[in-house]
Amino acid sequence: MTLMTSWVESANSADTDFPLNNLPYGVFTTNRLEARCGVAIGDQILDMAALEEEGLITLAEEPVFDVPYWNDVMDLGPAAWASLRARLIELLSADAADQATVAPHLVPMADARLHMPMMVSEYTDFYAGKHHATNVGTMFRGAENALPPNWLHIPIGYNGRASTVVVSGTAITRPNGQLKAPDADTPHFGPCQKLDIELEMGAIVGTSTEMGQPISIEEADEMIFGYVLLNDWSARDIQAWEYQPLGPFQAKAFATSISPWIVSRDALEPFRTSTPEREKDLLPYLREEKPGLYDIDLSVLIQPDGGEAEEIARTNYREMYYSAAQQLTHHASSGCAMNAGDLLGSGTISGPEKSQRGSLLELSWGGKEPITLKDGSSRSFVEDGDTLTLTGHAQGNGYRVGFGSCTGKIRPAIDFS
Amino acid sequence: MTLMTSWVESANSADTDFPLNNLPYGVFTTNRLEARCGVAIGDQILDMAALEEEGLITLAEEPVFDVPYWNDVMDLGPAAWASLRARLIELLSADAADQATVAPHLVPMADARLHMPMMVSEYTDFYAGKHHATNVGTMFRGAENALPPNWLHIPIGYNGRASTVVVSGTAITRPNGQLKAPDADTPHFGPCQKLDIELEMGAIVGTSTEMGQPISIEEADEMIFGYVLLNDWSARDIQAWEYQPLGPFQAKAFATSISPWIVSRDALEPFRTSTPEREKDLLPYLREEKPGLYDIDLSVLIQPDGGEAEEIARTNYREMYYSAAQQLTHHASSGCAMNAGDLLGSGTISGPEKSQRGSLLELSWGGKEPITLKDGSSRSFVEDGDTLTLTGHAQGNGYRVGFGSCTGKIRPAIDFS
Repeated sequence: MTLMTSWVESANSADTDFPLNNLPYGVFTTNRLEARCGVAIGDQILDMAALEEEGLITLAEEPVFDVPYWNDVMDLGPAAWASLRARLIELLSADAADQATVAPHLVPMADARLHMPMMVSEYTDFYAGKHHATNVGTMFRGAENALPPNWLHIPIGYNGRASTVVVSGTAITRPNGQLKAPDADTPHFGPCQKLDIELEMGAIVGTSTEMGQPISIEEADEMIFGYVLLNDWSARDIQAWEYQPLGPFQAKAFATSISPWIVSRDALEPFRTSTPEREKDLLPYLREEKPGLYDIDLSVLIQPDGGEAEEIARTNYREMYYSAAQQLTHHASSGCAMNAGDLLGSGTISGPEKSQRGSLLELSWGGKEPITLKDGSSRSFVEDGDTLTLTGHAQGNGYRVGFGSCTGKIRPAIDFS
Repeated sequence: MTLMTSWVESANSADTDFPLNNLPYGVFTTNRLEARCGVAIGDQILDMAALEEEGLITLAEEPVFDVPYWNDVMDLGPAAWASLRARLIELLSADAADQATVAPHLVPMADARLHMPMMVSEYTDFYAGKHHATNVGTMFRGAENALPPNWLHIPIGYNGRASTVVVSGTAITRPNGQLKAPDADTPHFGPCQKLDIELEMGAIVGTSTEMGQPISIEEADEMIFGYVLLNDWSARDIQAWEYQPLGPFQAKAFATSISPWIVSRDALEPFRTSTPEREKDLLPYLREEKPGLYDIDLSVLIQPDGGEAEEIARTNYREMYYSAAQQLTHHASSGCAMNAGDLLGSGTISGPEKSQRGSLLELSWGGKEPITLKDGSSRSFVEDGDTLTLTGHAQGNGYRVGFGSCTGKIRPAIDFS
């Protein structure tokens, strides 16, 4: 696949995240425009509500773009998603006839503010990266027992909290919580001392299933509307004290950040790649014919307050052990109803090398090997004032399909005791 | 507190669940009425949408009752909830002036179908019954290690799945899932063999908090709109294989049933009772001045297909170790945003005696001591065709504040392999 050229010049650069091949979905405002759906193209945003109002694009009888979320488009289903993409390519390609009518509805990204691209129905987070699970398991249970016995059979997941999924750029307040030092008799309540990130991809479910109705892997793949970058902020010390026996709760409930642009499954199609060789055969309901992962380069950057941003990890989504389709199939296998707007976190994406680890817990090996930043300071975990940023893109031949960035700056904990 | 008499005669019986003292909130339809808000009084339902349309009750500028959920009323806040209750008592009390204008808007319960009383924003389930946690812990880890070290300090909870919270009467399909016999090398996929109930109360959050903003116990108590009965259906065998290290997922995701009537906090006020003596002092943020539990008698009944219903357990909500206000305060303590419509499951309510256990797992001690039913059959867990019913009421002097029932009949698993 090569670059598809557009009459929007900035979309033809080899290093834009948003060429015509991409066309990701977001929600934006400007000083004069209320929140509405937009599509990124080069350094511009196409105002979908205006396009719809002018009759240049029609997906349904009722307007679906003049709202601050893409859920209405999701509800129209995969055939509508395909016709939307086809029409956008028609309107924006270099040889488009409609250039003069479309051009007035481009808004410079520099003038826009981005918002959550959808209403999150429910948020589920998985634990489906083998390097990550092995690293964390080794730290907590020793190398012999690193992977739980179920791990090679089940895409392990837990329900997260949808109410605190926020768009990139939202400041993150350091959480308070119950903490217990290993040598203390009793816990105390106070600010988290081991604040961490988790580099993940988020898959957005675009259609719904009935309660009691499982789905096949093929159906699950068709249900995915698109992908975002996802930072599952984690309070490791709160988690260590609370998580037995029912899993993470307040350690993960305070914030999850996502990138503002939903990259569609169709845009990622050329970058499909398979999950790795299996040590143990998967049960039939989890076996996938079509490659379920994507070749997406991912980076983590840290920027101390007033300092420079620097990369501290680089990995790839293809390192996952389970695909989003496998996770979704497993999620519905008990009869759990799935809804448009459900967000599935991939689990932390770490590669086999130290520089490829997707959390500070792993990068600093639980704080035993702090990393040193360019300004000479060191980090075991995230400090107040730090800005953490995830970036990601799939690299094509002379172009990239990018996700933009997913960023959050840490504010000090509030006093509550 | 004694019975408040109503001109609705059936509300003055000592054994109705719905005297004037109660006035719980539900959603109903009839052959001629679309889904709308209603209030139970004796064996009647007061059609709130009709009352509002006639100007007999006005809570806000826009109508709030002509919708199939109580979330719009929740959004008006505690002052509106209080004025709603005061106005209902005024309209329905024995000496009411408006009897002739109100009476036409009573619908016999026998003619109505009940629906979910609210849109569930998110569902969180707790593990806050000490007898239950001790029983389960003893079975799984031995009596020495029954309670995890955090249990006396934290109201342990985990996020559940809102998409499968259903109203009483909804049939429950036995889930499929990954199961692994203790002596098997690998898991298989098939119908759950250890289907169970969990007798719980559900607290419904009625107002919202901002992300990053913790709340005090007093604020948390004020935020609770009301309570329902809740059956947290559980697949014990799926749970045993999946739950390490991140907690229950598909074992709980397939269904949660609630009773159709939300009993308001005000109706329960005369029945407040304290949480038990503490073995260990709670951290200050969890200490409550006001008694946070309620004296509510609870029963579990089982009815084999074609057989008679019989009681298999009887306990009381006052057996809980943590109140809903303590759970809600803990839930928001990290900065987790709470929303109107959030549902908090209390955790399984078991008493100290064998007959007071709120799950079959405990009643049959993991299947080692099956219970015998009147028809001579025995149960370790729930069988296809069984109907399980929870009932509950607070007993006043010559009256009761009841919850109605929370029931579900089990359908066989569907074939999916």
